[in-house]
Amino acid sequence: MAPVPNGTIPSAPVTGRLSSVYSEVQKKRVDHALPLPSVLKHPFTIIDGPPSSAAGNPDEIAKLFPHLFGQPSAALAPSDPRVAQTHHKLKIGVVLSGGQAPGGHNVISGIFDYLQERAQGSTLYGFRGGPAGIMKCKYVELTSEYIYPYRNQGGFDMICSGRDKIETPEQFKQAEETAKKLDLDGLVVIGGDDSNTNACLLAENFRSKNLKTRVIGCPKTIDGDLKCKEVPTSFGFDTACKIYSEMIGNVMIDARSTGKYYHFVRLMGRAASHITLECALQTHPNITIIGEEVAAKKLTLKNVTDYIVDVVCKRAEINYNYGVILIPEGLIDFIPEVQHLIAELNEILAHDIVDESGLWKKKLSDQSLKLFEFLPQAIQEQLMLERDPHGNVQVAKIETEKMLIQMVETELEKRREEGKYKGDFRGQSHFFGYEGRCGLPTNFDATYCYALGYGAGALLHSGKTGLISSVANLCAPVEEWTVGGTALTALMDVERRHGKFKPVIKKAMVELEGAPFKMFASLRDEWALKNCYVSPGPIQFSGPGSDVTNHTLILELESQA
Amino acid sequence: MAPVPNGTIPSAPVTGRLSSVYSEVQKKRVDHALPLPSVLKHPFTIIDGPPSSAAGNPDEIAKLFPHLFGQPSAALAPSDPRVAQTHHKLKIGVVLSGGQAPGGHNVISGIFDYLQERAQGSTLYGFRGGPAGIMKCKYVELTSEYIYPYRNQGGFDMICSGRDKIETPEQFKQAEETAKKLDLDGLVVIGGDDSNTNACLLAENFRSKNLKTRVIGCPKTIDGDLKCKEVPTSFGFDTACKIYSEMIGNVMIDARSTGKYYHFVRLMGRAASHITLECALQTHPNITIIGEEVAAKKLTLKNVTDYIVDVVCKRAEINYNYGVILIPEGLIDFIPEVQHLIAELNEILAHDIVDESGLWKKKLSDQSLKLFEFLPQAIQEQLMLERDPHGNVQVAKIETEKMLIQMVETELEKRREEGKYKGDFRGQSHFFGYEGRCGLPTNFDATYCYALGYGAGALLHSGKTGLISSVANLCAPVEEWTVGGTALTALMDVERRHGKFKPVIKKAMVELEGAPFKMFASLRDEWALKNCYVSPGPIQFSGPGSDVTNHTLILELESQA
Repeated sequence: MAPVPNGTIPSAPVTGRLSSVYSEVQKKRVDHALPLPSVLKHPFTIIDGPPSSAAGNPDEIAKLFPHLFGQPSAALAPSDPRVAQTHHKLKIGVVLSGGQAPGGHNVISGIFDYLQERAQGSTLYGFRGGPAGIMKCKYVELTSEYIYPYRNQGGFDMICSGRDKIETPEQFKQAEETAKKLDLDGLVVIGGDDSNTNACLLAENFRSKNLKTRVIGCPKTIDGDLKCKEVPTSFGFDTACKIYSEMIGNVMIDARSTGKYYHFVRLMGRAASHITLECALQTHPNITIIGEEVAAKKLTLKNVTDYIVDVVCKRAEINYNYGVILIPEGLIDFIPEVQHLIAELNEILAHDIVDESGLWKKKLSDQSLKLFEFLPQAIQEQLMLERDPHGNVQVAKIETEKMLIQMVETELEKRREEGKYKGDFRGQSHFFGYEGRCGLPTNFDATYCYALGYGAGALLHSGKTGLISSVANLCAPVEEWTVGGTALTALMDVERRHGKFKPVIKKAMVELEGAPFKMFASLRDEWALKNCYVSPGPIQFSGPGSDVTNHTLILELESQA
Repeated sequence: MAPVPNGTIPSAPVTGRLSSVYSEVQKKRVDHALPLPSVLKHPFTIIDGPPSSAAGNPDEIAKLFPHLFGQPSAALAPSDPRVAQTHHKLKIGVVLSGGQAPGGHNVISGIFDYLQERAQGSTLYGFRGGPAGIMKCKYVELTSEYIYPYRNQGGFDMICSGRDKIETPEQFKQAEETAKKLDLDGLVVIGGDDSNTNACLLAENFRSKNLKTRVIGCPKTIDGDLKCKEVPTSFGFDTACKIYSEMIGNVMIDARSTGKYYHFVRLMGRAASHITLECALQTHPNITIIGEEVAAKKLTLKNVTDYIVDVVCKRAEINYNYGVILIPEGLIDFIPEVQHLIAELNEILAHDIVDESGLWKKKLSDQSLKLFEFLPQAIQEQLMLERDPHGNVQVAKIETEKMLIQMVETELEKRREEGKYKGDFRGQSHFFGYEGRCGLPTNFDATYCYALGYGAGALLHSGKTGLISSVANLCAPVEEWTVGGTALTALMDVERRHGKFKPVIKKAMVELEGAPFKMFASLRDEWALKNCYVSPGPIQFSGPGSDVTNHTLILELESQA
């Protein structure tokens, strides 16, 4: 147990991390060598697939992407080593878009290493602060020394990220100017569904202007809602779920040891409940609420409360006055009656006087009034008082886990008075969010991202555009992973906004008929009453468990096989 | 990346964990072999030290512990292998007392293995649910099969814990009856300062009644406030601080990547700020508030707010509108003016009518009124509305991190109006508590606890009582760790309660002249303005960093050397 103090990385270059000292684990990771799929280790050729279509409304997508629609997806295949490979130099830009996800730095390292190894003399520019960096031509040239301290590290701080979008004609013009100024052969956009839609619009725009700049997307989001057959998972999901599951597992053991608390854990993921579902599969909580199920079954807040209360009562009968409950961040967005109430409140608050005696409530519909009265006092007040600059009720500010604790308490008191409940209930609330977005990427995310980036380099080098980097066959050993690119237009549908068709990559929601949900649904009743808690423990980078991927990915891949 | 599903432990016995599946990491840990200090690997003898005294008021301690006061501490030393060792069988009880701390299961494994290896045929009873288990004689016989699945695992769920105390003559009588009924040769009490005081009272009581039952304590608390020269650290502190530091490191990278949030992180530790200080040393946050310093300098809430605001303003000038701030859970307990306000509020709320117009406020002293008006509206309301069953204001319910965010916002607005601040401030609050109490113990805690337990077995086998198991020289390789027992009376002082002297082991607070605080104080100004963030990453059980102990322990041991 000799003390080993934190030390500086001697060769650390002049970056934001210069003044940092690295922990032992960071140091170990920075020098961790990553395996590559074998197709990326040798000379390769590109095999084009059949013409593609769209996820929906192909006619509209064809109109929106006249130059790109229908283009085939591309697969890398080993080539005859006697065939000369292209070795021309490239100028490539890369940008991080949207919220952090563990592994982003490795995508960039992958692109860089591809260029170093396959297109010597190439240049890689990192646009700073997200898409705004493209528009403002704010960039840094990424060198070996610059990239080194970020290898296998969490965060997006190598070039930082941003949430701006390139939308208006003026903004597209700015992007063109940057592409021309830097003489870019290609651009890699690392982002979620919106950012990849944007990447495709850029690709279309550059092509329509006869610019040589090609655009390749990369699937990033811890929420796990950007995926399809060709892109089995978005990066960051694996690491984030494992970090949250470590915490949930710890809280479970705590719950069982003290025997006196119900822990309500809200998990990041506003749109889809993949994180909550994956964490449930990893840890086996007593209760898990999946937003997509709530929406599909048109459940009310009362239904959700009753489901929790029923389990609490049954557990009390077998002397378990404790438990762990997982809730997706976006739960109340899935409940139709809540949306109605919010809409009515916004209307009333905008036009009417809210009198203390409560006469204003008569303006609510019966259903909304009933729901409003059902809400805990504190939430009622929060809805009335805290509003955004437009005067709208701020649903996102509601701490769903605390609201549920209060509603469960109230309902349990009712049942106690009816003689149906004799237990003790004490709720503890948790929100696991920011802790998971910037962790050190797992071996899976580190390797997957590196392949995504390396593959993106290969696609650009082959002259491809409008594709999303696609690494698949992920349940096989890394050598057997497949690498290619999927036509972004093939993932698109349209939505009507302000009277116009807008292309969108539809978020992949939790499928109630999908293997992960069905696995969960087949076990949850057992988990509810027995305590089948699993404590995944901290992410390990070597030894047993360090190369296990997540349940969602494994179950989905197995069901496709 | 082959998927390895969770599997059951084939030999798992009939316990609460039977229905559990174990994660890969849990499985790896359960079979992790622990090194022992070399003195425990061979025949040993006990060397008694000089007569001991007390930490304060030795005359009173002598009166309270007539049979134990003055007894020497004991050190284990290698003995001549030709001298026959005692091998008589023992009946030993063990109890977990108070809040969870990672490593408790290993103390029990250590006792068990000592008995198996050095006193074959012995019996180990685990009292269930804390000291109440002793009083009610609720126990389970701990066998090899029973203990196995808990080896190196977090939590206290092997026998669970409780917060009852053995205090009244009737309760001591119950404990005696249990000791007699089970024919106990010894009892190991695993707990914090209060529980070890209680252990010593039990030892004194058993001795005074001529019972053969000896009592040995073990130092447990994640708070790190039970320690002295002979007991360099309490177990669980190392693991808990590393779990919190993993999360803080992640949040730091997030802060730097987005560049738009100040994260206010409240950390467990109501009495002492050791956890906050250690996490600061591990991660280098921009601002750290240490309760003991606030108390020593008699800082007001306004002073603390101003300190934070000053740093936020200086950082805004160099374009850093983000940062990470650590706050100990017990912060407001350290602020004298808050205590005065609370006392006055309790008095007023008990006797007066609180009128809406605020006339009641005239009953507050000038200082308290000023403080009350300084508090954010929400906190004012919380103080007035939420009271415990005795009608008292519930200080513990105040979410200090949220209160500080609001106070900082208000102060920044003032400075903005004065033209002294031009930045953007957005606060995000976090509380890291339950996540850290039941994690898988680090290699250090696992090994330290095993030695504490094994040593406790040796002390009982040698007929010792009223000692706390003491494993020291912890910066040396495990083989060189020293093992022994320190007279519990030597750690005690008295406090006057209800007109009587009560023995207490004084909590070890953060010493402002101690090496850890001085190290922190010498670096904090640099950390405030530069971003020297360290991300410790997840606890590793093998490879680099896995055997590093915490900074507090290393710095304290080095300064003593």
